[in-house]
Amino acid sequence: MNETIENKNYFMNIAINEAKKAAKKGDVPVGACVVCNNKIIAKAHNKKELKKNAILHAEIIAISHASKKLKSYRLNNCDLYVTFEPCLMCVGAILSARINNVYFGAFDTRFGASEQLVNNKFNHTSNFEGGILENECSTLISNFFKNIRESKKDKNKN
Amino acid sequence: MNETIENKNYFMNIAINEAKKAAKKGDVPVGACVVCNNKIIAKAHNKKELKKNAILHAEIIAISHASKKLKSYRLNNCDLYVTFEPCLMCVGAILSARINNVYFGAFDTRFGASEQLVNNKFNHTSNFEGGILENECSTLISNFFKNIRESKKDKNKN
Repeated sequence: MNETIENKNYFMNIAINEAKKAAKKGDVPVGACVVCNNKIIAKAHNKKELKKNAILHAEIIAISHASKKLKSYRLNNCDLYVTFEPCLMCVGAILSARINNVYFGAFDTRFGASEQLVNNKFNHTSNFEGGILENECSTLISNFFKNIRESKKDKNKN
Repeated sequence: MNETIENKNYFMNIAINEAKKAAKKGDVPVGACVVCNNKIIAKAHNKKELKKNAILHAEIIAISHASKKLKSYRLNNCDLYVTFEPCLMCVGAILSARINNVYFGAFDTRFGASEQLVNNKFNHTSNFEGGILENECSTLISNFFKNIRESKKDKNKN
């Protein structure tokens, strides 16, 4: 986890921009990008609602695109930036793809699964570091749900 | 887990047929199908090698297809049949898609993750039952790796 703070913030901002695209389409704002040798090789946002598909988390789409780009399912030299702590499925995908470092923004106290690693049996270990641009990332999520609650209240009033 | 043995074996045989397709293309033979109200709505096989993509396990593809078919990411009324015990990523996907029952064939003593459920924090629990047509399912896998080892030996001889 030797990345500079400037680089971490730079790449997390790319993920944040992706997250904003998800929100615009009505999806929970989570964005991700895959970085290899300091270059962004894939970026993606959550499309679960849009595509009605529970698989299509930002991390899964970004890893798929990165594999396509590198023509390999082994992403050992790649780091993943994601605005929200990955869930069990995405942690499994990260390990399966052998991602090197994972930098995430906001912590997911409900479904975050990065601590599941302790007991994992995969033949690869990814390093996880949370809290990169945490405020920006968590505000994205909280604003999204606040807007949903408010628009429901407005509907009930009318 | 009230399914009849006949039905379990019938649907597992569909998954086995899928697994055989994977082997023919050089992928570890794992096959899956999604069953809803006693009808197969999706079937798929492992395409990790073929597509050079660590995400493309049979379960992930089958769940994606089922979601597309039902136009929903909630597969509460669906069961998943898979020839090999699901890994961490696939268990996460199964829970995320809210699959009802999971029937798997061979146990994966290395990467099988169905027991991870005990400590999961998802707001859904899927039922797991292993050992359906276990011999057929595990033979598929062991034969696949035996063939790879033998073809390597042949290459070394030449």
